[in-house]
Amino acid sequence: MSSRVPFVAALLVLAWSPGSIAADGPPAAVRELQQRALEDRRAYATLKDLTETVGHRFAGSEGDARAVAWALATLRAQGFQNVRAEPVTVPRWVRGTSSVQIVGEQPLALTALEIGGSVGTAGKPVEGEIVAATTLDELKGLSRADVAGRIVFLYDRMLETRDGMDYGPTVANRVQGAAEAAKKGALGVVIRAVGSEDEDRPHTGSLRYVNGVPRIPAFAIGNRSADRLLARLAEGPVRVRLASTAGCQGTAASANVIGEVPGRDPQAGFVLLGAHLDSWDVGTGAQDDGAGVATVVEAARRIGELAERPRRGLRVVLYANEEFGLSGGKRYALDHEADLGRHLAALEADLGSGRVFRYESRVASQDLPSAIRLADWLAPLGIPFTSNDTGGGADISPLRERGVPVFDLQHDAGKYFEIHHTDADRLDRVDPRDLAFNVAAYATLAYGLADLPGELARGDREWPAPSAGVHACEWQP
Amino acid sequence: MSSRVPFVAALLVLAWSPGSIAADGPPAAVRELQQRALEDRRAYATLKDLTETVGHRFAGSEGDARAVAWALATLRAQGFQNVRAEPVTVPRWVRGTSSVQIVGEQPLALTALEIGGSVGTAGKPVEGEIVAATTLDELKGLSRADVAGRIVFLYDRMLETRDGMDYGPTVANRVQGAAEAAKKGALGVVIRAVGSEDEDRPHTGSLRYVNGVPRIPAFAIGNRSADRLLARLAEGPVRVRLASTAGCQGTAASANVIGEVPGRDPQAGFVLLGAHLDSWDVGTGAQDDGAGVATVVEAARRIGELAERPRRGLRVVLYANEEFGLSGGKRYALDHEADLGRHLAALEADLGSGRVFRYESRVASQDLPSAIRLADWLAPLGIPFTSNDTGGGADISPLRERGVPVFDLQHDAGKYFEIHHTDADRLDRVDPRDLAFNVAAYATLAYGLADLPGELARGDREWPAPSAGVHACEWQP
Repeated sequence: MSSRVPFVAALLVLAWSPGSIAADGPPAAVRELQQRALEDRRAYATLKDLTETVGHRFAGSEGDARAVAWALATLRAQGFQNVRAEPVTVPRWVRGTSSVQIVGEQPLALTALEIGGSVGTAGKPVEGEIVAATTLDELKGLSRADVAGRIVFLYDRMLETRDGMDYGPTVANRVQGAAEAAKKGALGVVIRAVGSEDEDRPHTGSLRYVNGVPRIPAFAIGNRSADRLLARLAEGPVRVRLASTAGCQGTAASANVIGEVPGRDPQAGFVLLGAHLDSWDVGTGAQDDGAGVATVVEAARRIGELAERPRRGLRVVLYANEEFGLSGGKRYALDHEADLGRHLAALEADLGSGRVFRYESRVASQDLPSAIRLADWLAPLGIPFTSNDTGGGADISPLRERGVPVFDLQHDAGKYFEIHHTDADRLDRVDPRDLAFNVAAYATLAYGLADLPGELARGDREWPAPSAGVHACEWQP
Repeated sequence: MSSRVPFVAALLVLAWSPGSIAADGPPAAVRELQQRALEDRRAYATLKDLTETVGHRFAGSEGDARAVAWALATLRAQGFQNVRAEPVTVPRWVRGTSSVQIVGEQPLALTALEIGGSVGTAGKPVEGEIVAATTLDELKGLSRADVAGRIVFLYDRMLETRDGMDYGPTVANRVQGAAEAAKKGALGVVIRAVGSEDEDRPHTGSLRYVNGVPRIPAFAIGNRSADRLLARLAEGPVRVRLASTAGCQGTAASANVIGEVPGRDPQAGFVLLGAHLDSWDVGTGAQDDGAGVATVVEAARRIGELAERPRRGLRVVLYANEEFGLSGGKRYALDHEADLGRHLAALEADLGSGRVFRYESRVASQDLPSAIRLADWLAPLGIPFTSNDTGGGADISPLRERGVPVFDLQHDAGKYFEIHHTDADRLDRVDPRDLAFNVAAYATLAYGLADLPGELARGDREWPAPSAGVHACEWQP
């Protein structure tokens, strides 16, 4: 705790407030909220509507514009208040067609997708010998003579875990591989797709270039294609040919879509529930992040239906363009900078439809007892409190950096990373019961926070984590 | 690859050597080696003998001395050559008795073990109010006023994964928690034990102090005790009382025990197979690292039995005191510095008896094709090659730092971290079939390396990774 006095004061408030949090499980209204949520399939119906009527909704695409219209209509139809679109400018990148082929006596086409933001090959294929490295560190250890004029193959593999903890270490190959390879004179880069499944499914995602370093084309190949390429390398030198018509095409207009559920006290501020409306341009973004959209919309709608609402309101924010540069999350924090004091806390759903298995917070020390006590309300769902150092979600990170307390419900991400950013991210990967379970979890935590006695201290202002490189469709020298 | 010429040269050697590695699976002798290993239970018998006749063998204890005698006798009885003990001086720490109790109106005894190397409480208990933090980063963010005169509780929880990747991030609380807490004036530290199971089982392990910073007592409590303590914190301030008679007691004599299996060509060097002979002072070290000892001994013995041995020999090194300061691994590298050129490569087994599920190397770029081709021999066991950036095991890290190529067979560590460093690390946690599978894997890779055509390039000399603090039983100012 940061001082003794606020800690004791907080405890007194907890003990004396009529709305105080019981240490022995949720109040009857929340128990009923959980029970009804578990039995309902409305979130799945919302998700089905989004994926089937809108389809993919990549930033700046026609689908993106359809998604904004869909979100406005859906929030209004579901009874939200103050429904509106706040404009966000997004970069626009178009995939085109692409191929990655082993050439020579035993040619072989590999299953590939361009990495989002990659330059194309300007009408003629790029061909070169493969030089392989597991990770960026290994690539950095190679000399310029090893790499120049060749095509770098980065083959580290993501391991499946319940919380997706291997994503961060592995995805560095995708995000920075092209820039690091180009610094040593490579012609192109091919990575083992960042996915844990034993299939030949390429996963896209974004990359970053570095100003002053040549922008080279970058591709992800499926796990089985990566294994085939490694096996060929054991037999001798391998040449590959890369072709792509991808490229940046300026900017486009998109929007953050917002809807609210008022609380009992209009002066009491609100809890922000976030998810991102955009998706990649393959599949229909059912898990990423259609599931998050459907979960937070339904969790907020259910709280709005209650006879006795919590003291504070809920603000649902469906963010523009998380995938290709976090445009919506950054814009929201700038647009609402003067009003951040009314944001009690923020919570985002952006890890698919796997069931929530743990609960985390990032609050000031004196508010830790409040955070832990909310775990009593999640206990009937089997969700324990495990840490006070969550980062929250990507879209709410600009809020966290400005001191807004963030909370997180960690989803089981084992299956998520099998189809994340792939053409297989479609409705058939979502179990309606999982979505219903997650609605119960988000509704519980959202209610508990919205009805929290007292306020939460603001966190320290953070400097944003430095990113290596610049967005792929940003200015280049 | 680091240059084109050696790469092509290596391929020619591979293609022309009579002993060259086939790209279509292991040769008949290795297939038979695998089949026989899978059917045999001799490694389990060796492990049973070690755990039942020696028991725990913590550095400097009587069990440690018994273990050295056992290893010498066992290697001789199993037909190894040049069996010998190379002296190693080890620090000696004695646990004594200990307790961690919540005091006040609702007293509660928590299930605890001192962290290895911890100072005791000098005959009188230490009592103070708990201040909680998830991680060291969060602790560092607290002010001295928050922490001084209190007892720090670090409650981050290790998640179960197949490769144990969450051990490193979580174990920092155990290793550095006491020093970081003491820097801010804490009286003691209690951590959530570093284990992934839902039991109330404390895990020990070592810590490091920092010279010039007070040495405070440190304890690990079981996962359920940690959850109880968190729940109490949600209700209000909590006081705990710590007591321990632990302490350092100078040094003791131990030894690395070595045995060899000669190859066809006495001039051709050898492959080092390592495991550590010591264990913690709780349980009987059946998984950590009795399983590794039994696995490498049996893998080498089986290769020694073959009608046609590989070109190079095998050297089995059973290291002294890995757990409490890596004494044996460091000593071996110093003692054999002049002879490292004869070590083709090193491979260690120190992650229990879970089945090997992936194969990794750390070789110079021009040797990558050789490393990958050995995966063909492991393919019948379903073990893929996944990276060239392994660190190898702890005991062989001083060899790696001196440029010796290292290889790694990654075990499924899901169950391992449920009982690692606990009283439950006993023979009943080991499945004899898993051990047999691992013997097949180690024997295959050891044979393949020992019979490798040509040599492996030396790696770059590394600077050892800096450790925070000093060994708990080392000099203090």
